[in-house]
Amino acid sequence: MNSWLMWPVKKIDIEMIAHARAYQKTLTKPIGSLGQLEVIAEQFSGWQASLHPELLSIAITVFAGDHGICRQGVSAFPQEVTAQMIINFLTGGAAISVLSRDLDADFCVVNMGTAYPIANEFAQHHLLVNEPVNSGTKDFSVEPAMTSQQLDKALLIGKKRVESLNVDLFIGGEMGIGNTTSASAIYSALLELPAENTVGPGTGIDEYGLALKQALITKALNLHQSNLGSAYDVLRCLGGFEIAGLVGSFIACAQRGIPVLVDGFICTAAALIAVKLNPDVRGWLLFSHCSAEPAHIIALDYLEAAPLLNLGLCLGEGSGAAVAVPLLKTALSLHNKMATFSQVGIEC
Amino acid sequence: MNSWLMWPVKKIDIEMIAHARAYQKTLTKPIGSLGQLEVIAEQFSGWQASLHPELLSIAITVFAGDHGICRQGVSAFPQEVTAQMIINFLTGGAAISVLSRDLDADFCVVNMGTAYPIANEFAQHHLLVNEPVNSGTKDFSVEPAMTSQQLDKALLIGKKRVESLNVDLFIGGEMGIGNTTSASAIYSALLELPAENTVGPGTGIDEYGLALKQALITKALNLHQSNLGSAYDVLRCLGGFEIAGLVGSFIACAQRGIPVLVDGFICTAAALIAVKLNPDVRGWLLFSHCSAEPAHIIALDYLEAAPLLNLGLCLGEGSGAAVAVPLLKTALSLHNKMATFSQVGIEC
Repeated sequence: MNSWLMWPVKKIDIEMIAHARAYQKTLTKPIGSLGQLEVIAEQFSGWQASLHPELLSIAITVFAGDHGICRQGVSAFPQEVTAQMIINFLTGGAAISVLSRDLDADFCVVNMGTAYPIANEFAQHHLLVNEPVNSGTKDFSVEPAMTSQQLDKALLIGKKRVESLNVDLFIGGEMGIGNTTSASAIYSALLELPAENTVGPGTGIDEYGLALKQALITKALNLHQSNLGSAYDVLRCLGGFEIAGLVGSFIACAQRGIPVLVDGFICTAAALIAVKLNPDVRGWLLFSHCSAEPAHIIALDYLEAAPLLNLGLCLGEGSGAAVAVPLLKTALSLHNKMATFSQVGIEC
Repeated sequence: MNSWLMWPVKKIDIEMIAHARAYQKTLTKPIGSLGQLEVIAEQFSGWQASLHPELLSIAITVFAGDHGICRQGVSAFPQEVTAQMIINFLTGGAAISVLSRDLDADFCVVNMGTAYPIANEFAQHHLLVNEPVNSGTKDFSVEPAMTSQQLDKALLIGKKRVESLNVDLFIGGEMGIGNTTSASAIYSALLELPAENTVGPGTGIDEYGLALKQALITKALNLHQSNLGSAYDVLRCLGGFEIAGLVGSFIACAQRGIPVLVDGFICTAAALIAVKLNPDVRGWLLFSHCSAEPAHIIALDYLEAAPLLNLGLCLGEGSGAAVAVPLLKTALSLHNKMATFSQVGIEC
């Protein structure tokens, strides 16, 4: 295992959080009446060690990779779609592309390993980091999804991506046909839940598909049983290259002091692994939304996360996190720009 | 009662909603994966009779007024604060002022009748409509809050404000010390709920204050019992001038074809009255958030409303609605700018 995963995270300025909380009470509103928006402002104060934190720059990186489990027929979409969607990300037509433009984010797609190659004319695209670990993972229902060497490489790609960034917020997105099955398996292994509790409909699968996913995960949990004692091995046996990229990026963000706005079901699985590997990473994570996948709320509760949105989103790509960014900006704007009671001469 | 209240609302283009729904299915994402954001885009298509609706202009009007019930000690804040907060709205330090600036909204405050006069140097402020119906309502625990003449005047002020607008979205806000008590009484009367179910902590009241509010509302419901058969009379007996202003503005918006993004507990009481007076108004209302007031969810359920946010907000002023505006813009941006499957050559 890469030793860098356990390196300490950047220290959060706890005293500044207390200052920010006290300052919130001086603003012209009943105490606590801005709810979670107040908490967000206080958290940013701690992250930026500033009473008046700002959210000016955002990086969005989408990690994409394919999954061997797909050959079992777990997805409603064919595996070609992963590579096709990478091109859609690059050419600006995907949801996360639109959202990134609207947020003026530093956008990038990392090909972590697709089953089908990226079409030649896009392989050198300026928004693409083309570092495939392999042409997709192995089928985790019959063998480990990846080797340790592959996993270490994938984690490092995530870290490297973050090392080049100097931003106020990081969003990791993912694309990979079949990766809800991988995420469900990870939740089952790490939260000790039967597949029936962690498998949802994914992106458009029917009742038969649901039963198939549950059976495959149950089989995989038995097959890899002796290897599921550590989060690292859970990721190796059941994960995906793009999930490993997310894990690496989340840990590196916490180490560099960049807060992460976590997207939905798949990204929360990566966050869970990151926190299991290095518990202090949790302090640098915000959770954007509760997805339509039924198991997501279980994982969020486990992480003591209060997601900002609950709009029935289940697209992935980092889209739910991007949708939530304006709430963070609004929280900081209110915190920084509202008048205090003493400024306007109201005594309370 | 003003006959204009029952005038028909603008017709919504149902066919265009169906077109928009069909178009959503061609976008490069699994069907339904953008959840409520898809529904928002479809609703705007119906309102604007356009497959590609836009949200470019927003008006935010805060109606302010005082409440006679305050002399019973129902609020943690003194009644002077209503007039002081009007000045804070005008000078830009209040939450809704900050949010309005950030949204580049057409912002305005209407003094519907405060107990204390607006300080002279602000009485002619360009953002203030100074049309007090009276110096606050009467104490509704001993007599009707207002006369029919006063109510008709207040409703008309709301209508007049909207008649001058040409915008894609209207947000009504409110300020009035004691108006959560008035709103709770309205909910009790219209939804036939005992005060125990409609009274929450408001903005910082203790357990004693809670019991007092419940007792006063129970007393008022008995006192006005024979007058609570119509929403108009409920508003007259238990309401406030600012709530009546909201009701008038909401109905006029629906008649002019301007969708309304409804704020929290108080504004939803106004929306409930508006819908009771003219049921078709409901089709022009979006609900922004579920407030921290426990009875709010009951009213939202009654109105079959799925609020966009649930962040523990309970500030009023229209602030929760303003916080939710970026979600609407995001919904339309995704709807209008995403690529279709056929454009990018993905077959599904």
